[in-house]
Amino acid sequence: MPVYTIKFLPDDCIATAKEGDNLLEIAMRADVYINASCGGNGTCGKCRVRVMKGETRAPTNPKVSRKDYDAGVRLACMTTVHGEAVVEIPFESRIDRTALTRKRERPVVLSSSGSTELIQGWEIDPAVSKRYIELQRPSVDDNVSDLRRLEREFQAKYGRTDISIDFPVLKTLNTTLREADWKVTVTVIETARGIEIVNVEPGNTVDRNYSIVIDVGTTTISAQVLDLANCSVVKITGQRENGLDLCTLAESSDYNSQIRYGEDVISRIMYAQKKGGLEKLQKAVIVTMNGLIRELLAMSNTRAEDITHIVCAGNTTMTHLLFGISPKYIMLAPYTPVMTSGISGAAVSGNAANRNGASLACGENAADPGASGIVIPPVRAKEMGIILNGHARVFAFPCVSSYVGGDIVAGMIGSGMFRKESVSLYMDIGTNGEVVLGNKDWLMCASCSAGPAFEGGGIKFGMRAGKGAIEQVKIHPVTYEPMVLTIGKTKPAGICGSGLIDIVAGLIETGLIDQNGKFRRDRDTVRVRQGEDGYEYVICYASEGQVDRDIVITEVDIDNLVRTKAAIYAGCAVLLEHAGISYGELEQVIIAGGFGRYIDVERAQVIGLLPELPPERFVFVGNGSLLGARLFSFSKGFLNEAERVARNMTNIELSNSKSFMDGFVAAMFLPHTDQNLFPGVMERLKNNG
Amino acid sequence: MPVYTIKFLPDDCIATAKEGDNLLEIAMRADVYINASCGGNGTCGKCRVRVMKGETRAPTNPKVSRKDYDAGVRLACMTTVHGEAVVEIPFESRIDRTALTRKRERPVVLSSSGSTELIQGWEIDPAVSKRYIELQRPSVDDNVSDLRRLEREFQAKYGRTDISIDFPVLKTLNTTLREADWKVTVTVIETARGIEIVNVEPGNTVDRNYSIVIDVGTTTISAQVLDLANCSVVKITGQRENGLDLCTLAESSDYNSQIRYGEDVISRIMYAQKKGGLEKLQKAVIVTMNGLIRELLAMSNTRAEDITHIVCAGNTTMTHLLFGISPKYIMLAPYTPVMTSGISGAAVSGNAANRNGASLACGENAADPGASGIVIPPVRAKEMGIILNGHARVFAFPCVSSYVGGDIVAGMIGSGMFRKESVSLYMDIGTNGEVVLGNKDWLMCASCSAGPAFEGGGIKFGMRAGKGAIEQVKIHPVTYEPMVLTIGKTKPAGICGSGLIDIVAGLIETGLIDQNGKFRRDRDTVRVRQGEDGYEYVICYASEGQVDRDIVITEVDIDNLVRTKAAIYAGCAVLLEHAGISYGELEQVIIAGGFGRYIDVERAQVIGLLPELPPERFVFVGNGSLLGARLFSFSKGFLNEAERVARNMTNIELSNSKSFMDGFVAAMFLPHTDQNLFPGVMERLKNNG
Repeated sequence: MPVYTIKFLPDDCIATAKEGDNLLEIAMRADVYINASCGGNGTCGKCRVRVMKGETRAPTNPKVSRKDYDAGVRLACMTTVHGEAVVEIPFESRIDRTALTRKRERPVVLSSSGSTELIQGWEIDPAVSKRYIELQRPSVDDNVSDLRRLEREFQAKYGRTDISIDFPVLKTLNTTLREADWKVTVTVIETARGIEIVNVEPGNTVDRNYSIVIDVGTTTISAQVLDLANCSVVKITGQRENGLDLCTLAESSDYNSQIRYGEDVISRIMYAQKKGGLEKLQKAVIVTMNGLIRELLAMSNTRAEDITHIVCAGNTTMTHLLFGISPKYIMLAPYTPVMTSGISGAAVSGNAANRNGASLACGENAADPGASGIVIPPVRAKEMGIILNGHARVFAFPCVSSYVGGDIVAGMIGSGMFRKESVSLYMDIGTNGEVVLGNKDWLMCASCSAGPAFEGGGIKFGMRAGKGAIEQVKIHPVTYEPMVLTIGKTKPAGICGSGLIDIVAGLIETGLIDQNGKFRRDRDTVRVRQGEDGYEYVICYASEGQVDRDIVITEVDIDNLVRTKAAIYAGCAVLLEHAGISYGELEQVIIAGGFGRYIDVERAQVIGLLPELPPERFVFVGNGSLLGARLFSFSKGFLNEAERVARNMTNIELSNSKSFMDGFVAAMFLPHTDQNLFPGVMERLKNNG
Repeated sequence: MPVYTIKFLPDDCIATAKEGDNLLEIAMRADVYINASCGGNGTCGKCRVRVMKGETRAPTNPKVSRKDYDAGVRLACMTTVHGEAVVEIPFESRIDRTALTRKRERPVVLSSSGSTELIQGWEIDPAVSKRYIELQRPSVDDNVSDLRRLEREFQAKYGRTDISIDFPVLKTLNTTLREADWKVTVTVIETARGIEIVNVEPGNTVDRNYSIVIDVGTTTISAQVLDLANCSVVKITGQRENGLDLCTLAESSDYNSQIRYGEDVISRIMYAQKKGGLEKLQKAVIVTMNGLIRELLAMSNTRAEDITHIVCAGNTTMTHLLFGISPKYIMLAPYTPVMTSGISGAAVSGNAANRNGASLACGENAADPGASGIVIPPVRAKEMGIILNGHARVFAFPCVSSYVGGDIVAGMIGSGMFRKESVSLYMDIGTNGEVVLGNKDWLMCASCSAGPAFEGGGIKFGMRAGKGAIEQVKIHPVTYEPMVLTIGKTKPAGICGSGLIDIVAGLIETGLIDQNGKFRRDRDTVRVRQGEDGYEYVICYASEGQVDRDIVITEVDIDNLVRTKAAIYAGCAVLLEHAGISYGELEQVIIAGGFGRYIDVERAQVIGLLPELPPERFVFVGNGSLLGARLFSFSKGFLNEAERVARNMTNIELSNSKSFMDGFVAAMFLPHTDQNLFPGVMERLKNNG
């Protein structure tokens, strides 16, 4: 796909763009300020630009007269680029003194469907696979049982000695074999317990082996349908038209229906203890999953009977609830879950419960001969109420502790961190904020109890990263007017995590708030005002948004954000201190989380959420949990690997840690009490100040 | 228990008896003829004897006057012995010329609860066992998951490395552990697939491990409840008051409710093909099993939750129906069952499908490291509708072919034949008549399609061996009057298998029929007469029986019996011919079957059912299938052993065998066309002439 150069005048700011990119987004990315209030909806008419040269497309719009349109005037939010272009920013949008000509290094973004490099060194070799077998018809001289006949061919062809059969298969075996004229496809699951035959179906269906991988989040459930049969390392690098790789047929996500029973894991655990509560919670998440599965099947034109398995990754509470297991003691000291082992039949090595330093060599697909530990086999999807056939199984990632779950272990797998030589820091910025430090030889993790600010919790107009959420904001340093982009480019409905970071960073960069997060009351703008909850900044007036009130950010909101970022930063600091490593020694900081796709590293550094390291050291993996689930489904080697990773991660308990409390208090400043940690940010703030 | 000598006058015939034995039965056993028509019911008054001396007890009876009673006159059928005794047979019962003073060798009878000698060399080591574990309470410094905590102790204590957990256990694990204050008993199943934890219960319950073993017969279902925890090889030799060994708490049996859908396997297979038929048949057998289980639990005062497993042995069709698997192709050429493997998780060696000559070394409890083949794990009892707790599993014996089933394999185990150096012949005389020849190194088997004559089928007054069935008969050589004993000593209701043998043997010995089974019409007795189906012999007049017609045996009945015994004899002959062995080389003939307990070897030889060998070579094992099921439950080594036996038994198909047809025709004579095979019988018949 060609890459175009887009030049913004009058500052000669150069941006790169791909075919069809949105002009307002290009400007936002390139740090070019353009007034924009309506989120990219084409209704406020403020983002007028003039296309001087080049290929762009835009519909006519009532906000742009015929005469202006002919002169090249466009609304940036309604314009797409289809070649090189030169665009002039009109006077009212210009920021005179900011000649942002430096070309910013964008961090690597690994989308959840671009896992190519991560699967290197692993065979595409799913734990659930299919084998086509032709049997000899029975005769008087050869009238062994149907099962023995199958066994004979199976052994002759695959030479396996540890095969069992799932009982229900026997119930239809005679009819299936005969109706198929003794030509059948056998579906098997390979785990530490050997091979289990879970299905025998007529004809040759080896090219129809699909899986569904699901990130079971507290708030959002994301899923993809994968084509495991027509899939190879080479093919994964290819791209479909929809941007997914060739193995990913469709993806979708939805809110977890459990939300009605509580926003966070603690409220759900409490609900689970009510009469019938656990059952309702399990049913709710299954309802959401079933909806997604139906949607994915339709989108990908796949038959339910061809889905051989599901791989789930979720935090410890979500994993318990999904399988109908009481999470009660997760929230009661000393916080013990029922199980942390994967529900996967994976081999587990040693009884190294949370001990550090064990070797996690990669690529050992075979079950460890010295494997021990209690294995939990995968569960029948049908028994859980999932709308798949009887043979489909549900696998789930192992967890580490009550508050470091399967989503984080999946992130270790998905990001490839578990097999890197160099030390990385992994930050999953969701409701809790889990962080992991380490490499292929050791991993330590912590849950920061960060709070849900980045998911919209505790923020007056906070919302989850859905349609209408303000996700990118710039504030004009002179006029203090905001440039606003929403998800889906609809009118603003609220503020999501990345928008929040942008707003607070903008407020501090423009000097509208001080380093304590308090509004400076001497600035000349009507957007900062006394509201019902104290001082606030208006991001979007009621007339331009979807809600009937002005969308604002208050000092209380800022305070909540500061607490959240301080907890995460302090959690990282504790891990680094434990390992005796400085930020500078980190080769990579891996950012995962639903909001991670749009997070602006520099902005996040301004508020002190991310450490001040060169941008190229940051890697965004998006939904790391889903990435890990994909790999788990692609290759059975990851099953045992995930179990080993989970068992060997050292969980650092922060709730009683003095280091953590000290670090937390120190980080309750923007960007940080210790200015030496953020010299670059401090320098910029001084200049702006 | 003391053994008494009972002398019968005037012939000085000596019999031995145990305390409380019935006098008419003692006489029957000792070949002392006493008139008796009512089956031992005390109503016909014909079995008058005079007790000359000794300890006997009998109630007064209207048929015996006060004066006679005081003179020692008793009804033999109502009299029990309690010491040495001398008994005079009155004139009307005497057989002058038969001075049966020879002391007959009674064959060894192994009752289904006297399996002591069979278990020699095997540990009492059930596949389902319990382990008591005390866990450390969780603390802040040790807050691993409940499962990890269990795993740690379990591994430390038992050092196993191949453990899995049954998913439902996880659902109650947290509550159980805490309510039990971390002291629990873990129930595990050990199979070729490793150890599976199937239950965790509070406290120490290791001394409560019970099993139910079931012979699932086409007609009758027999069951016992075993105490596996308080059980050792030494204890098995001890006897309880009820005659059961110390490990057997209770036993019972009932008709298989499936009978309403057809008497034999073929009619059931046909019924199974009707809409809903298979489900009805499965439900019917489960209903019977549940009734027996309830009864056994009550009899033994055992709690349902302490039954850890069930072991079933049944023929191939019964096994299919029990597990809800269609037996359709068992009755259609080339007669292939769905499965013959045991439903037991047993390791299976090689893929030696029905090949001869494989070594069956005994005592190898460990799973064969080179084991292969498709393993079927045991099934949850609850899923089958059995009224036991969720963790109880159902094991079933492996079968050999469509018509040699798990009951026969169980018989190999139960009789110990599978590990004998010398060659034995095993005859299971039920509906089909299955025979096995071999020793520890090789086994070959055949199903004779003998027909149900010995179970009452095709016999005008035939009935199953239940209350009121005529089971022992002698015919007076001069008066041709019968001496009749029924099961339960009630008035006769019909004739069961052993009675039928006695009657036909009596008819031929007294010359009432010829060697073709046709009545001689020149004998002076009203009991032989022209009936509605041709000539017949009256065993019991309507006035003395329970039915409103005379109980007779017809020439058609005799013809059916002859066909049945001919098929069995011919089946044995084919096996011997295949192996190149003569009857004389057999060290043992093992007789199994519900009727086997009372069968009279000499009589069975007279009709040519059993070969003419010295009586000491015959062993009666009674219900061999139940015996095998017991051993299977006692020691997990038998699981793999049963699988090996089943897989290495060579099935000889008789339906197309010329040898079999020739042998069958030759055996359609009483005792046999080839008189050299039965020289002793011929000699006696000549004398009786």
